[in-house]
Amino acid sequence: MNAQRVIAELRELASRTGTADGAQRLAWGPVWRDAREWFRGKVAELGLRVDTDAAGNNWVTLPGTSPKTVIVGSHLDSVPNGGWLDGALGVMAALEALRMHVATQPPVTLKLVDWADEEGARFGRSLLGSAAAAGSLKIDDVRELKDRQGTRLVDALAENGVVLDQMLDAHRALKTIDAGAYLELHIEQGPVLESMQKSTGVVLGTFGVERHMLRFTGQAAHSGSTPIPMRRDAFLAAAQTALECREIAKRHSKPGAGVVCTVGIVNVEPKIVTAVPGVCEISLDQRALDPHVLAAMLRDAHDASDRAARDNNVAVEWRDLWKINPRPFDPALVQLCEDAVREETGEAPRLPSGPLHDAAEMVPHMPVVMMFAYSSNGLSHCKEEDTPREHLERTICAFLRLVQKTVQHVAHNEERKGREGRKETTGL
Amino acid sequence: MNAQRVIAELRELASRTGTADGAQRLAWGPVWRDAREWFRGKVAELGLRVDTDAAGNNWVTLPGTSPKTVIVGSHLDSVPNGGWLDGALGVMAALEALRMHVATQPPVTLKLVDWADEEGARFGRSLLGSAAAAGSLKIDDVRELKDRQGTRLVDALAENGVVLDQMLDAHRALKTIDAGAYLELHIEQGPVLESMQKSTGVVLGTFGVERHMLRFTGQAAHSGSTPIPMRRDAFLAAAQTALECREIAKRHSKPGAGVVCTVGIVNVEPKIVTAVPGVCEISLDQRALDPHVLAAMLRDAHDASDRAARDNNVAVEWRDLWKINPRPFDPALVQLCEDAVREETGEAPRLPSGPLHDAAEMVPHMPVVMMFAYSSNGLSHCKEEDTPREHLERTICAFLRLVQKTVQHVAHNEERKGREGRKETTGL
Repeated sequence: MNAQRVIAELRELASRTGTADGAQRLAWGPVWRDAREWFRGKVAELGLRVDTDAAGNNWVTLPGTSPKTVIVGSHLDSVPNGGWLDGALGVMAALEALRMHVATQPPVTLKLVDWADEEGARFGRSLLGSAAAAGSLKIDDVRELKDRQGTRLVDALAENGVVLDQMLDAHRALKTIDAGAYLELHIEQGPVLESMQKSTGVVLGTFGVERHMLRFTGQAAHSGSTPIPMRRDAFLAAAQTALECREIAKRHSKPGAGVVCTVGIVNVEPKIVTAVPGVCEISLDQRALDPHVLAAMLRDAHDASDRAARDNNVAVEWRDLWKINPRPFDPALVQLCEDAVREETGEAPRLPSGPLHDAAEMVPHMPVVMMFAYSSNGLSHCKEEDTPREHLERTICAFLRLVQKTVQHVAHNEERKGREGRKETTGL
Repeated sequence: MNAQRVIAELRELASRTGTADGAQRLAWGPVWRDAREWFRGKVAELGLRVDTDAAGNNWVTLPGTSPKTVIVGSHLDSVPNGGWLDGALGVMAALEALRMHVATQPPVTLKLVDWADEEGARFGRSLLGSAAAAGSLKIDDVRELKDRQGTRLVDALAENGVVLDQMLDAHRALKTIDAGAYLELHIEQGPVLESMQKSTGVVLGTFGVERHMLRFTGQAAHSGSTPIPMRRDAFLAAAQTALECREIAKRHSKPGAGVVCTVGIVNVEPKIVTAVPGVCEISLDQRALDPHVLAAMLRDAHDASDRAARDNNVAVEWRDLWKINPRPFDPALVQLCEDAVREETGEAPRLPSGPLHDAAEMVPHMPVVMMFAYSSNGLSHCKEEDTPREHLERTICAFLRLVQKTVQHVAHNEERKGREGRKETTGL
């Protein structure tokens, strides 16, 4: 268990595939391919090899006594001008986990996975490789995607040996794995651990998201000649709704089960200094880990927008943008993760993940847990992204400890099942 | 006194210089020139002539017994796709006022003025001709103005015989007029008279305006990973300020002395659905007729924005856009206007003017009053602009009555001054 080595390799990868502006491992591009080539060399040093599935995900298998498998992974791709740890931390820690077990055959099989195109930074579809492996990718949804230069996703995939219409073969491949656990280490990309001054967090699951556009329609009017009581100001209705939605989120937050809500897009029309806005459109992004809480937040937001519309004599229409159900992680693995983090760092703060991760795609298929590392200033997707060295070392150690515990846990479950199976046979 | 004739001439002008999309008398363009040519013909029928001053304003003089002068006017130019009454109503009613007096020499001189480029629709500087006549125009402020096609104001003026650097000669010309009153009839361009079901309103003055941009700066953050208590949401600070400014305006409004306040522009950054806005800019346009009230509203808005910034852990900066002092009209003329409106329509609602008008430019130079006509649905600057016929007739009659009263009033003042002057002379 060598956290220093993991950090050294992360530095090596950063200097090889980054610039002064940050990491440049954009999925399907030459720098990303170079990063994977470098990684292939690291894997070869362990006497192992990289296999690529039909969706471009890279797998490394360390066979154990049992075919029962613990999967450990993350992604090597980055956004343009990205951070050195986002994704790469999880992959390099996973490699160290394999190294720890390569000398002696482990009781269960270990697989490392480097998911392809987690970020979706070029074509706008994140979790592309893991969604294909999970079988949740709708090929037709991405068939026409192009990047800003007009290059088609299908052509970028082909350049990397991936055939769009065969990507779901990765799902068939995943189903052949007898998976007992999926573990992923990631930088938090948020300010929670930093605010608590904790190195490492136990992730409870990924938030469910309800994302909508709300369009308020009143009447544009001259800012000088229209008395306030006669106005139908669409912006003020939207402003009232946005403030009320924050109160709704506060009301539904409980200690350790915070929820969030964000108005990120605001558009007013006619957008001139001398006109009362006749139209205002806002995006509303609500997130919670508990599906019942998320549903209640959405109902409350509907009520708030109706009330604001009434108060301002305007109309409001909702339009769905996107939704995803919460993906709570496996309670037994969350407990193992908590034990590992506590043993390494003394305490084990639990937090939900706001951003999605490849781990979320694995939830329907196997027990999953994630661990988060402290994120300086909560910054990610930028060159400033960092985890201070002492927090990083501790977190890597905690994660490797989690892998060991999980291997033991899965092996133990297998043994018990085996004993029960033998008992049943004996009983016949 | 023939309101029907005024309406018939307005219809004639509309059909000559409008399209199915509305009035097209854009200042300095061919349709506007054609409208003025048509008007010149109407003036010639009275045996009078049009004189153009150095700013392109057209004047018609009907000499009276005294050189003391009552000026009556408005503007023939319109916005593109504008209304048939905005501006033209005041000019055609002024022409009827001259007609009323042309048969017999009036006791005071009457002047009609058709101001050039009230709308500023092409070059963005409204009240151009009246500001030049008032001496408030800063030539250097408009020297570099261009329209959307890149044509320079200076060239558009030259096409119409106006030399930019000589425009202020119009001010010297105005100062030679011994003006006792300026009267202007205009369509309200707002919903107040309609809401009271009144044909005609007495205008108390034009609002003072305080116009600012407020820039709230917080910190952009991921909408999923940033707990609400840790956010620095610039939009929510702006939303809170906007709602609070409306309350401030309500608090400062008194019956018959309403004030207004409008947030018309809203810009958020980075303006993506998954990011807490790190920056939000809003315009704030506050208007009141009482300068003390306007100053108090501005102070309260500053306090509100500071409080909202504090509450949301963001910074706020104010940037001046524009201001103009309130221009209250002359109390004696307001009283005459009230009498005229009451005699014609039974009641005389008083209201401030939210939009500016050429009349505002005359306030520092002579006693001024305006009269407003009912505006259907409060709409203006569009082809739907209208005053229903019965309201229009009554309003024109009230205005012509106001001209008569003002002529008598100014003549009477002159006589009294004459008598007092003679007494003084006798006393010596």
